[in-house]
Amino acid sequence: MAEDNVIYVGDKEPMSYVLATITQLSEGSDEVTLKARGRAINTAVDAAEITRNRFLTEADIQDITTKTEEIEDEEGGTTNVSAISITLGMSE
Amino acid sequence: MAEDNVIYVGDKEPMSYVLATITQLSEGSDEVTLKARGRAINTAVDAAEITRNRFLTEADIQDITTKTEEIEDEEGGTTNVSAISITLGMSE
Repeated sequence: MAEDNVIYVGDKEPMSYVLATITQLSEGSDEVTLKARGRAINTAVDAAEITRNRFLTEADIQDITTKTEEIEDEEGGTTNVSAISITLGMSE
Repeated sequence: MAEDNVIYVGDKEPMSYVLATITQLSEGSDEVTLKARGRAINTAVDAAEITRNRFLTEADIQDITTKTEEIEDEEGGTTNVSAISITLGMSE
């Protein structure tokens, strides 16, 4: 999967990421992966659920994985943060 | 899977749910499912990641699913909320 099929979910409203997902899937991408860390995990799940339930009912969640990432904190140390990847694709 | 293998994740710290997960898996349960809605989704992912990375390295995430649930709001209408289920199990 090309890296431009990845949508990074941040602190905007879920609908922003829903629209980005719909756009990519409508432009011919077979699948789109929503990636989020920390509090944005909830937003990524919302965006995936809204996309498949309300807008693209022929889309479905194909894979969900989680991992732990190390990020640098302000004092130069590291902090662990959870991350999620949700892959949405069009049903065959 | 018996219903008592479900841990409902709410607004406590992730470590509360990590300890509940470790307890169930240590007492002989083959698997434990963390369930969360809304903002607690992030806490559930944190609890699963902390459990498998820091405490039970022989445990792993076996399945993650999301869905949309309807809940009643204060005016008697309904609101949609995203929910997640994360199943952790001991590796064979």
